[in-house]
Amino acid sequence: MPSYTPPLRDLRFVMHELLDVVGTLKASPRHADLDEDTLNAVIEEAGRFASEVLAPLNATGDAEGCRLDKSTHEVAAPAGFREAYAKFVEGGWPALSCDPAYGGQGLPITMNQVLYEMLNSANQAWTMYPGLTHGAYECLHAHGTPEQQATYLPKLTSGEWTGTMCLTEPHCGTDLGLLRSKAEPQADGSYRITGNKIFISSGEHDLAANIIHLVLARLPDAPAGSKGISLFVVPKFLVQADGSLGARNPIFCGALEHKMGIHGNATCQMNLDGAQGWLVGQPHKGLAAMFVMMNAARLGVGIQSLGLTEVAYQNAAAYAKDRLQMRALSGPKAPDKAADPIIVHPDVRKMLLTARAYAEGGRALAIHTALLIDLELSSPDEQVRRDAADEVALLTPIIKAFITDNAWLATSHCLQVFGGHGFIREWGMEQFVRDSRINMIYEGTNTIQSLDLLGRKVLGDNGAKLKKFGKRIAAFVEDEGTDEAMQEFINPLADLGDKVTKLTTELGMKGFQNPDEVGAAAVDYLRVCGHLVFAYFFARMAKVALQQQGGGDPFYAAKLNTARFYFQKLLPETAGLIRSARSGSASLMAMDEALF
Amino acid sequence: MPSYTPPLRDLRFVMHELLDVVGTLKASPRHADLDEDTLNAVIEEAGRFASEVLAPLNATGDAEGCRLDKSTHEVAAPAGFREAYAKFVEGGWPALSCDPAYGGQGLPITMNQVLYEMLNSANQAWTMYPGLTHGAYECLHAHGTPEQQATYLPKLTSGEWTGTMCLTEPHCGTDLGLLRSKAEPQADGSYRITGNKIFISSGEHDLAANIIHLVLARLPDAPAGSKGISLFVVPKFLVQADGSLGARNPIFCGALEHKMGIHGNATCQMNLDGAQGWLVGQPHKGLAAMFVMMNAARLGVGIQSLGLTEVAYQNAAAYAKDRLQMRALSGPKAPDKAADPIIVHPDVRKMLLTARAYAEGGRALAIHTALLIDLELSSPDEQVRRDAADEVALLTPIIKAFITDNAWLATSHCLQVFGGHGFIREWGMEQFVRDSRINMIYEGTNTIQSLDLLGRKVLGDNGAKLKKFGKRIAAFVEDEGTDEAMQEFINPLADLGDKVTKLTTELGMKGFQNPDEVGAAAVDYLRVCGHLVFAYFFARMAKVALQQQGGGDPFYAAKLNTARFYFQKLLPETAGLIRSARSGSASLMAMDEALF
Repeated sequence: MPSYTPPLRDLRFVMHELLDVVGTLKASPRHADLDEDTLNAVIEEAGRFASEVLAPLNATGDAEGCRLDKSTHEVAAPAGFREAYAKFVEGGWPALSCDPAYGGQGLPITMNQVLYEMLNSANQAWTMYPGLTHGAYECLHAHGTPEQQATYLPKLTSGEWTGTMCLTEPHCGTDLGLLRSKAEPQADGSYRITGNKIFISSGEHDLAANIIHLVLARLPDAPAGSKGISLFVVPKFLVQADGSLGARNPIFCGALEHKMGIHGNATCQMNLDGAQGWLVGQPHKGLAAMFVMMNAARLGVGIQSLGLTEVAYQNAAAYAKDRLQMRALSGPKAPDKAADPIIVHPDVRKMLLTARAYAEGGRALAIHTALLIDLELSSPDEQVRRDAADEVALLTPIIKAFITDNAWLATSHCLQVFGGHGFIREWGMEQFVRDSRINMIYEGTNTIQSLDLLGRKVLGDNGAKLKKFGKRIAAFVEDEGTDEAMQEFINPLADLGDKVTKLTTELGMKGFQNPDEVGAAAVDYLRVCGHLVFAYFFARMAKVALQQQGGGDPFYAAKLNTARFYFQKLLPETAGLIRSARSGSASLMAMDEALF
Repeated sequence: MPSYTPPLRDLRFVMHELLDVVGTLKASPRHADLDEDTLNAVIEEAGRFASEVLAPLNATGDAEGCRLDKSTHEVAAPAGFREAYAKFVEGGWPALSCDPAYGGQGLPITMNQVLYEMLNSANQAWTMYPGLTHGAYECLHAHGTPEQQATYLPKLTSGEWTGTMCLTEPHCGTDLGLLRSKAEPQADGSYRITGNKIFISSGEHDLAANIIHLVLARLPDAPAGSKGISLFVVPKFLVQADGSLGARNPIFCGALEHKMGIHGNATCQMNLDGAQGWLVGQPHKGLAAMFVMMNAARLGVGIQSLGLTEVAYQNAAAYAKDRLQMRALSGPKAPDKAADPIIVHPDVRKMLLTARAYAEGGRALAIHTALLIDLELSSPDEQVRRDAADEVALLTPIIKAFITDNAWLATSHCLQVFGGHGFIREWGMEQFVRDSRINMIYEGTNTIQSLDLLGRKVLGDNGAKLKKFGKRIAAFVEDEGTDEAMQEFINPLADLGDKVTKLTTELGMKGFQNPDEVGAAAVDYLRVCGHLVFAYFFARMAKVALQQQGGGDPFYAAKLNTARFYFQKLLPETAGLIRSARSGSASLMAMDEALF
């Protein structure tokens, strides 16, 4: 069975040495009292929970799956999930970065993200129960009425209740404009909602006393399409005036999906049969309100894949040091043994370092972005808040798509390190691959992310957000341009920055003539941008490592090596991607549909 | 549930229009009577068997898996597998390309390969039962004594008995030199074999009356390492002098592996407890004899992934034409419907065309190679036989690794086309992905293939085999160099050929200094060579299509488009691969093992 060790050293490196989380947030009155020691203690404790409580339930949860009792519509999560959740609530973890006004601890979002990386490494399926809850919390915190906030936020903060997002219907996933669920206004100001939802993660389970569903549906007077969708809060059990639970609301799990992975999470078909709900935000503006939750969820999906990449790497590295097979090409390295450990083989190292670089790059990007969200939410400086929001908007699709695509590659490489054993369930590697596959799909497929990036975030504002990020890179290149030791990082970073600028201009012009040119290039473009962002962070990490490596801590030697590996072995992918992106849409669009 | 339509049109195109199978083989006395109509009738009938008998058992076999009765050591394959196999035997399919001396039909290997592409599209797990049988047939045909051949080949030819390869042990897979199973000589000339084997595909099942295991073990006087391994034939039931079945031989299935995919195939732990066996080939030369089987198996694994790529493509294309979601970026294409079919979106087409191009390229390469094997086995001209053998040796690792890596990408893309539904078992797409994953591992991992290609097949003979293939390309480039319409294919093909030549020289020189340079570059190198080979075949296919497209058959327009797509969107990957390959081994080897 796989093991998991929280990567505390690298987390501290990214938080303190690379990004200076405490220093960056100290101007925010909300976070004026932060200190490194407290943060370190919190992540250490979180890591203990993840590795000791959750990780042991990952393989068993996969094997057992969830069970629906069709007579009661109740779902049982795998053995141990409920008890682990109780410990999670008892430990106060759901409240970590929630608003103190509702019982939260008020720590930065950054801390919550670090917590979630570790939870996901340990058990993605389990983590989706509290993960979606936090999304519901954020949505109601931003868009709920004061009454709704008073009713739901304390319980979502404490974790006594969990949450869901009910968007997808059988005929509509990406295209929510097609959705059919209906909301009929009632005399008391509530609504009766009827419809069928599918793919509802954590839709029904036995972890919490109540489940707060956020449901998209149409009002009777709704315009067609995506501008006629409203958002409703629909609790599993109605909440009485005194806060106690009342009648069961008719929102029932009709079936559980049988999936490739994340078996421990209940993916439900939910039937709403006149379920009582209350409007959240403005009528017909449900998509906008839901997008608060969706953007958080997209970051959350990136973190899921970051977690899987890290845990897959750890186990593959341990196996590669242990498994004896063949001799090194350059001569025996363990002559006293029957064969050398397979880590002596260059391609085994290449597979391992690919996963390691994707984990370390993803961690830097994800924590950087979480820190921007904290600035967006808490900085006293409006310009800082606005810049942070812009950068978060730009980076969100990259985090979602680039990190999840990387995890699919990385977990597969890590499986491969195990040879035939990687294909066998008991070793646990194939579960990481299966679990990671959904991350490329849900909360907007990676194709949708790429269109969001290129079409909306980049070309939609004539490259303004991208230019802001480009300035970050340019400033760093300028600062380090005279440092000989940094040339191996700075030169390819600067070169790729120039190429992205040219490619963006070219695609903007072509897309102006023919929008299919944007659609044809978007996936390649996102991956190029992902590499640009990773190259920037690896160059910055290399700089810190170069400064510190004299101190004798081998952590910095490893960091420097991983950065070199990234630049030499992974970044070159951009050469092919740029060519593909530039080759246009003709070879995609010319063929008649009937010939497919 | 997925459907499968045999790609008869493309098979005929490759066999007759591209490769002229009949014309190529007519100089071989063994195949002098071949004609296109017969071949077409055979593949049509084979396609019917695959689509009507096997395809309906694929999802059910995956869900049900195999069952071991621990008291009897007997294994039951999933429902329907046994009956399907009986029909397969009744139809004479196992005998298709077997030697008429043992009851075979004597058709070219090429036909068998076309058969197996379709069987694998329909049901890879089922197809592994007869597939391994054919490998055992080939091994005994090449290395068995006349008595062994008389005993086993007629029953393996008819399919009444099946076969296995028993190589792997818990502590050794890639490194067979470590194997421990022992063979004690007996007075009657037989051996008693004792040991534990794992990962034995089709090791035990209820499809056939007897199972003929080919087992690697050590004789008492065996030298250590891979030069002390001998090959034995070990039947499940001993065969009596009259050919009837005698005593149960103590080679028992101790457990079934629980795997990521190919659930319908029984992957067995086999315990040999003094099982009676007979030496095949020379003492201590077992690996060489087994490699006859292994090389056939490597081609077979490529065909497995070719089959999966094709069937995944077909289902994703059908879904993309059917599923309505969003409007085309360039404006509505189905204004009478609620949304456009998703095939209007450029990236959906890109995912589909990636799978299509990998299927069509793989098919051309695989049939070309099978035809070379036929020439190697049957040409009256010794030089032709020798050249064919060299080219088969060069192409085998490419077929095994490039086609299986491509299938992993392609089946994943095809899953993605289904959005969330792709992750749900009932749609069947995730099974293709799971099944395809093993193909990158077994019969020599894809890393091993890359070392075989670069280390042994290319650098091992100073590039002689590669140069021969290069001459094929050069001749084609020369022939088509003046054809304006062919420039879009010829120029990048010639350019890549030059780059491969330079890269090979560079890696040869670096590898001479430091063998880790070969190990560091080999996987990238194989993928570049795979693209070179595909580019050559797509250029040739484009040529045929250009010649024929005036006739109005839209097949040629589609072929030409797929070739263009391949050159514009897939071939550019080589730019990054070459850079990565050239960047050397330092970033892989520098990091201390303890820092991983």
